Amino acid sequence: MLFDSVAIVGVGLIGGSIGLATKTRNVARSVIGVGRNPATLTRAQELGALDEWSTDLVQGVRTADVIVVCSPVDHIARQILEAATAAKPGAIFTDAGSTKANIVRRVEAELPEHVVFLGSHPLAGSEKQGVEHARADLFVNRVCVLTPTENTPPPTQERVTAFWEALGMRVNYLSPEEHDLALATTSHLPHLIASLLANQLPEAWADYAATGFRDTTRIASGDPVLWAAIARENAEALNDTLTAFGDRLDELRAAVATKNTDELIRLLTTAKKVRDDLGN
Amino acid sequence: MLFDSVAIVGVGLIGGSIGLATKTRNVARSVIGVGRNPATLTRAQELGALDEWSTDLVQGVRTADVIVVCSPVDHIARQILEAATAAKPGAIFTDAGSTKANIVRRVEAELPEHVVFLGSHPLAGSEKQGVEHARADLFVNRVCVLTPTENTPPPTQERVTAFWEALGMRVNYLSPEEHDLALATTSHLPHLIASLLANQLPEAWADYAATGFRDTTRIASGDPVLWAAIARENAEALNDTLTAFGDRLDELRAAVATKNTDELIRLLTTAKKVRDDLGN
Repeated sequence: MLFDSVAIVGVGLIGGSIGLATKTRNVARSVIGVGRNPATLTRAQELGALDEWSTDLVQGVRTADVIVVCSPVDHIARQILEAATAAKPGAIFTDAGSTKANIVRRVEAELPEHVVFLGSHPLAGSEKQGVEHARADLFVNRVCVLTPTENTPPPTQERVTAFWEALGMRVNYLSPEEHDLALATTSHLPHLIASLLANQLPEAWADYAATGFRDTTRIASGDPVLWAAIARENAEALNDTLTAFGDRLDELRAAVATKNTDELIRLLTTAKKVRDDLGN
Repeated sequence: MLFDSVAIVGVGLIGGSIGLATKTRNVARSVIGVGRNPATLTRAQELGALDEWSTDLVQGVRTADVIVVCSPVDHIARQILEAATAAKPGAIFTDAGSTKANIVRRVEAELPEHVVFLGSHPLAGSEKQGVEHARADLFVNRVCVLTPTENTPPPTQERVTAFWEALGMRVNYLSPEEHDLALATTSHLPHLIASLLANQLPEAWADYAATGFRDTTRIASGDPVLWAAIARENAEALNDTLTAFGDRLDELRAAVATKNTDELIRLLTTAKKVRDDLGN
């Protein structure tokens, strides 16, 4: 077995799925869940995602080799630093946050020396939240981005890589800053734009929202509080990304207003190529 | 049987599916396809969507009770007017175009008096084009918008309603202008926005485009020429819709730039409610 004990802080869709995958794939002997709500933790244990649980962060992480913090992005750094004081020497901290630069910067500045940290972002999820939707195969063939810095010990990078690969993921490496820029474009922008589109639908026209509208706005069903935190944590990169999107929108508006068919076909053709290349 | 003979002009995904559904559900004794490409028409016949076919529009529609024109939106009015000269007295023309005001305005102005016309828009489709993807159940439980005007004879409205209902659709009625405004918001805007998002993805970041990006951009795989024609035909309504979207984007950018959590949560919460209410 890769690890003796894994602690998961925040047992929702992602944390619960990490627990299920860790148990199902025999990645660790024992999985400990840490959260605030005993009912949720009990349910996670019933579902087979946890061996034991605690509502006390410091207590819960004490014996773990690896601690994966799956909380909302604006809680991650604080929880890692709080848990680190109680973790055993050599314990590895990582996380599942959708933003990285803020978290990595703060944790690297303040982490005690007896533990190590490497930021992770497993690109898996769903607009369905909560441990009830957790799945052992949520991570299979998905990409996990690790964000090492010049402070990351190579053995830590190897161990964290091995952990996510053991859950079935393909691991990539980006700097925290490049991660945040890339994800602003590939995840945070689409989420906000999907929400704008949903907000533009009057109730009277809901009957005319067919497959295209439904696909395009599906992620707007995500948790507003989680996504507001992501937008705030990644505000700088997202700002640049929104500006670039606004420029593209202005070009499009000009092409529609002037009925410029060549320009519309050019724009739609490049988009079709990008999307076709992604596959389903 | 509801009709003796139905002619379908333009046998792609929509026209082919109308043929299959008409045959499967015994809506007409005979289905005649009209198109430009003999190979496509032969294939449609092999798939069971057509009884016979012609590459000659005037020849193909001569015996039909109902003629459904499923061509790109910028060809529909012209084809109806051309076919009308050869159609038998009392023949009913309708179409499957995604825009209505331009088509209805022109056809009503120029249609010969021995035939009738009522605009239709069956809200069904796929980013997959072509008769190979045609399905007899494409229309089941979907909405079809009919766009009657003060010139539409009530019996025509009843017959066209009966036709789409026989294919499994729910029929709604809007004026051509309201149809175009509604569809600008529910279909044309999302398509163009999905294309902008796809165009903003650098190839190097394709690995980081997960489910959210894929859902949000799926319709960008649609046919660029068809969609450019739709944008041009519905340019006025789309212009207003894009302006409203631009205003929403400006509000969002301000909320991100100022890290205004309350405003972000408000925006995301209303969007979640709209999207949750739509269901899958």
